[in-house]
Amino acid sequence: MQRPVFFVSDGTGITAETIGHSLLTQFAGVAFETHRVPFVDTYDKAQHAAERIRAAGQRCGQRPIVVNTVVDGTLTAILAESGALMLDVFNPFIAPLERELGQPRQPRVNQAHALVDFTAYEARIEATNYALTHDDGIDVRYDDADVILVGVSRSGKTPTCLYLALHYGVKAANYPLTDDDLEAAELPRRLRPHRRKLFALTIDPDRLRQVREARKPGSRYATLDTCRREVQAGEALFRQEGLPVLSTTATSIEEIASKVMSTLGIDRHAY
Amino acid sequence: MQRPVFFVSDGTGITAETIGHSLLTQFAGVAFETHRVPFVDTYDKAQHAAERIRAAGQRCGQRPIVVNTVVDGTLTAILAESGALMLDVFNPFIAPLERELGQPRQPRVNQAHALVDFTAYEARIEATNYALTHDDGIDVRYDDADVILVGVSRSGKTPTCLYLALHYGVKAANYPLTDDDLEAAELPRRLRPHRRKLFALTIDPDRLRQVREARKPGSRYATLDTCRREVQAGEALFRQEGLPVLSTTATSIEEIASKVMSTLGIDRHAY
Repeated sequence: MQRPVFFVSDGTGITAETIGHSLLTQFAGVAFETHRVPFVDTYDKAQHAAERIRAAGQRCGQRPIVVNTVVDGTLTAILAESGALMLDVFNPFIAPLERELGQPRQPRVNQAHALVDFTAYEARIEATNYALTHDDGIDVRYDDADVILVGVSRSGKTPTCLYLALHYGVKAANYPLTDDDLEAAELPRRLRPHRRKLFALTIDPDRLRQVREARKPGSRYATLDTCRREVQAGEALFRQEGLPVLSTTATSIEEIASKVMSTLGIDRHAY
Repeated sequence: MQRPVFFVSDGTGITAETIGHSLLTQFAGVAFETHRVPFVDTYDKAQHAAERIRAAGQRCGQRPIVVNTVVDGTLTAILAESGALMLDVFNPFIAPLERELGQPRQPRVNQAHALVDFTAYEARIEATNYALTHDDGIDVRYDDADVILVGVSRSGKTPTCLYLALHYGVKAANYPLTDDDLEAAELPRRLRPHRRKLFALTIDPDRLRQVREARKPGSRYATLDTCRREVQAGEALFRQEGLPVLSTTATSIEEIASKVMSTLGIDRHAY
């Protein structure tokens, strides 16, 4: 029987879910069934959530776990009536912070992820548009780029660029190495002035074959031979040019994004 | 003087930064200067981080704050030697979870955000490709869509689709309402079979004007008149068709995504 876990929040639930997942991964042997319950910001919604949590516990005969970021104490008390193990995410840190900062917090429902700053929003949107229009290596103004990801087709460049844009407002362009580039065995001319912005992605050839095969089944592009040849030539080029390289084979998008930023020294804040 | 805050992690630092930001927003009056310090997974890196933290405290004459998700106790002890106020994110919750689950945790460095599951990774990539190829309303197979966002041009559809894909592996298509659609004052024929997947985005006309003006300066498309007319016609259409509607004017991308999912009853997990 899976243990029911609820990520409950008065906002999007992203904080509750992020820390909740991190905690659950510390108990690898246990099977969890997780639910997101966002926007719990009224008495009625809290009541309804508490009923849902209680019912889940009864259904599976195990005490539910609630990872809670609801700020309002009254609503949290209602949730606790569900009988679940309550893990209040903010609670343990508020008192030490109040002492350290010498002032009480101002509890504001929904503030954690609310959009306060139009400028920040625009930076994300602009970076997203940049990533979308600089995704093919054809018509690109690299001067504006914070990062240029280089790699063979389907090595993970596009999702990483989009993630960097959406999360950090980082302008990431993406240069897919062509057959010509790989044969020439040198950096394409137009990348050379931007050497310090370059970051190379590589991938295990067998994994690349899977990804390409899913995309273009039966194509020559997807054969193991092609994948092996391209990856080898790419890696040789990255070595020769001294580019920072990361293998995306067993790396999550957020890890790739984080490594790219820390390697290139971009200390931008997540939104 | 800004109070220095460090989000320190043995992985990407996303958990530390997410909860850290949420905590800091509870103290709106205080100015913080925040830094992400990811991948602190060796003695040397911990030592180096501790020195950086100590130096920041000395520079600004205020005790730094560390929001810490490093799992290894030895490394955490090194960080604590910086003299910072240590907020250990996982600490308060591990003991209650161990008691509740009747087993000790298995501390595994880097597990919190590591890619364990290729299937999940592929779902995200596939959803991202879906969002990229279903972004114009032209050639679309809506049967595969989990969500179809409807709205006038620049109302926030594309970033939301990409966010849904990258975070939740949700396949989100995007239908931009054309002048013809707005004049006809009814749902485009091809959307009708998918009514339960539809979610409408709207936006304040003046805000829309700003966004369009930044994109196509001086265009007729960006005039307040055009924006007002389109938004009015769009909203009338959404009302008439009974679609769920959200204004993106002061809503962050993650809030829009979360509201779309909870409204349409999509309980997918974040990666």
